[in-house]
Amino acid sequence: MTPSLTHIDAQGTARMVDVGEKAQTQRVAVASGRITMSAAALAAVRAGDAPKGDVLGTARIAGIMGGKRTADLIPMCHPLPIDAINVEFAFEDDGIRVTATASLNGKTGVEMEALTATSIALLTIYDMAKALDKGMVINQVRLIEKRGGKSGHWRAGDAA
Amino acid sequence: MTPSLTHIDAQGTARMVDVGEKAQTQRVAVASGRITMSAAALAAVRAGDAPKGDVLGTARIAGIMGGKRTADLIPMCHPLPIDAINVEFAFEDDGIRVTATASLNGKTGVEMEALTATSIALLTIYDMAKALDKGMVINQVRLIEKRGGKSGHWRAGDAA
Amino acid sequence: MTPSLTHIDAQGTARMVDVGEKAQTQRVAVASGRITMSAAALAAVRAGDAPKGDVLGTARIAGIMGGKRTADLIPMCHPLPIDAINVEFAFEDDGIRVTATASLNGKTGVEMEALTATSIALLTIYDMAKALDKGMVINQVRLIEKRGGKSGHWRAGDAA
Amino acid sequence: MTPSLTHIDAQGTARMVDVGEKAQTQRVAVASGRITMSAAALAAVRAGDAPKGDVLGTARIAGIMGGKRTADLIPMCHPLPIDAINVEFAFEDDGIRVTATASLNGKTGVEMEALTATSIALLTIYDMAKALDKGMVINQVRLIEKRGGKSGHWRAGDAA
Amino acid sequence: MTPSLTHIDAQGTARMVDVGEKAQTQRVAVASGRITMSAAALAAVRAGDAPKGDVLGTARIAGIMGGKRTADLIPMCHPLPIDAINVEFAFEDDGIRVTATASLNGKTGVEMEALTATSIALLTIYDMAKALDKGMVINQVRLIEKRGGKSGHWRAGDAA
Amino acid sequence: MTPSLTHIDAQGTARMVDVGEKAQTQRVAVASGRITMSAAALAAVRAGDAPKGDVLGTARIAGIMGGKRTADLIPMCHPLPIDAINVEFAFEDDGIRVTATASLNGKTGVEMEALTATSIALLTIYDMAKALDKGMVINQVRLIEKRGGKSGHWRAGDAA
Repeated sequence: MTPSLTHIDAQGTARMVDVGEKAQTQRVAVASGRITMSAAALAAVRAGDAPKGDVLGTARIAGIMGGKRTADLIPMCHPLPIDAINVEFAFEDDGIRVTATASLNGKTGVEMEALTATSIALLTIYDMAKALDKGMVINQVRLIEKRGGKSGHWRAGDAA
Repeated sequence: MTPSLTHIDAQGTARMVDVGEKAQTQRVAVASGRITMSAAALAAVRAGDAPKGDVLGTARIAGIMGGKRTADLIPMCHPLPIDAINVEFAFEDDGIRVTATASLNGKTGVEMEALTATSIALLTIYDMAKALDKGMVINQVRLIEKRGGKSGHWRAGDAA
Repeated sequence: MTPSLTHIDAQGTARMVDVGEKAQTQRVAVASGRITMSAAALAAVRAGDAPKGDVLGTARIAGIMGGKRTADLIPMCHPLPIDAINVEFAFEDDGIRVTATASLNGKTGVEMEALTATSIALLTIYDMAKALDKGMVINQVRLIEKRGGKSGHWRAGDAA
Repeated sequence: MTPSLTHIDAQGTARMVDVGEKAQTQRVAVASGRITMSAAALAAVRAGDAPKGDVLGTARIAGIMGGKRTADLIPMCHPLPIDAINVEFAFEDDGIRVTATASLNGKTGVEMEALTATSIALLTIYDMAKALDKGMVINQVRLIEKRGGKSGHWRAGDAA
Repeated sequence: MTPSLTHIDAQGTARMVDVGEKAQTQRVAVASGRITMSAAALAAVRAGDAPKGDVLGTARIAGIMGGKRTADLIPMCHPLPIDAINVEFAFEDDGIRVTATASLNGKTGVEMEALTATSIALLTIYDMAKALDKGMVINQVRLIEKRGGKSGHWRAGDAA
Repeated sequence: MTPSLTHIDAQGTARMVDVGEKAQTQRVAVASGRITMSAAALAAVRAGDAPKGDVLGTARIAGIMGGKRTADLIPMCHPLPIDAINVEFAFEDDGIRVTATASLNGKTGVEMEALTATSIALLTIYDMAKALDKGMVINQVRLIEKRGGKSGHWRAGDAA
């Protein structure tokens, strides 16, 4: 039997899941993703980062603001009074890793907020560095961890 | 010598590039990305897609609407009167490929519109299918092709 | 004596009603409206709807997303963490009926969310079919039913 | 043969019409609609209108601002640098008529901007008067006139 | 020792303050500001205000709507289900004073909502009158009073 | 005779000015404003600014993004495809000065974009430092210079 998609109703049309009966619990979601770039672009981002931190500073702000607008962007997402969204960066050998954390005391999870913040931060890095390298690639955008709600604690790599 | 980032000015602070002097030309950008998912989730999307097409139908609308809001999301992007943004899907063995095309007769390129449309469509697929598989991963989000403007024709895979 | 408008204060100026003292209750609102169109346009929407459902599929997404943005559009509406907004369609002899349902556990009603979702869905049908019939007309946009809150259960057609 | 819907491509999926090849011409669209209400509600709106004009004043602003956001609300609409959107009101025996005019020098028409401005203004009247009459009904929302572009001059009531 | 900025973390990067552990209390904030203008402009606003109140009526709506969008505009602000935002005006000898009040039962204060509503209302007055006087100046935009939350009652002019 | 307000029509109601007949010219506007704060708050902003620049970095991004949304915030402003908006900061003895520059090749001026960017940047500084000093005051928000369009070159301090 095919498992059912929660956003598709019996007649196959899209719908918002009604969260009216869900319990209000503390929820946290962590998402992450990478952007790979040429050595020259990465060096420029690092150097541009040195004095004022603005490539990553701009991407951080964009990620947080984008995460707050998740319900405006993803059709079936609920508007949520999130407690916090934060975005961190790590330089890796061939690119930059973005990690976003969203938290809420509420009736539905904040995975999409964390994933949207991650994606918008990555797109902003692309935008700020594209004059140096149009061939940058965004990879491994995924949920890393999720706590709270009916499904409890979930971590990437655990058995799905 | 480190090549310069166009959005960072001489003092290292972020800025919008002034496009006032740029030529108005016909511009097209194509971007693409993938989301991999479990066989069960992919089967459900396919099946859910059969009668009403709503997972992909919803992702398509979200991608187009997200692409139109690029300048609201990416801090240094210019608001652009785009001619069109469209989004296509292809089923692959272990997931779904999204391809977005944006076009404009204007003073700056539409790479970010195509990449943003791609990313929002992929995030929407994640949202609509996450009840089946939280471990889905978004990969290979990149610019595929770009035409128009000073830098002319660019294709992924050509020498950068 | 003229009954008072809640959004107009003693001096006749517009204001938001302060809902701080209102009770948090379960609230539901149902709204509906119709768009009439030529037989040819209606046949094309039906046929276009057959394979992929995209006229109505697009209108459904637009209605839900528009409903979520009610407080951004209607000046005196409160931003509300709605539990769900959903949109249904029915073909009628000379057009299409849209019905939208909004629900919330909160301090103020969701009539405007249901009415806004209905209106945006109807406008989207107009947009998608206007190449076939510019003379389509939107009619009978109204509240059908309202539950919860101080005024209790209300249905259109009951004595006001 | 069924005439074709411009926003549905050969495979039946929704798409934005590419306006890149369309001529830039002066375009005007006029739309209109009505809201009927009880005599008591209408009297209150009129009286509330007397000193400060705020029911209609608020609806006017909401209509103009909503019209400017058409491309954010209607999925396949293009973002347009409109020249003006204006909204007028007329008291009728059993309600209020809203008329909105949008103009643009551009590649595509502004019907949707005029219709959206009309609808948002009507919804705002509903919101501001709903404490007096929940049974108000919006009717006759339609395009009245359209000038400019390939299809030339069109008026409601002329043969479609 | 330098007191710490709440939005800057240990490494000096911007972040949203996590309000998950904060108590939900009744909160009110009042902000105010002034715009000075030439006698001719002020007379025109007063006169324009006489019949229909639209300069100030428009500024009032803009202030309320802008205040509702605070979390969209100010990067580290939380989206809040505010109970009310209202805006008042007072004519002064050489200009107009704007006072905005925001209230919420929630986990964080509404100072920014009151200040944003004030600023957007003042900018709107500037926009509506700038054809008469480009030299108008906005001054004294500040928090006047704040109640609720950990810091309790605060009034401008009390010892900080 | 009272000079007329351009946004108020003959009947005293608010309206958008129709810019359809205006000439398309190169336009630039510069606006500026100040926020005063306690010595302790100013020191913390400077120090917080030293390693990563995030108070001002965040305010810069917020100002640019807010400036791009001017037509969404100020009711009678036209949506404009601006060429650039940039924001600069200067430390002064008792606070921080913000200067914003907007440019456009178009039919109407960009004063409101420059003023809105200035105001949102100032509000963001307030938000990021308010834990240290609730008594900060925003002053001297004004247009500094304007070039292009029918009224030509205007500078604050020249005879109005």
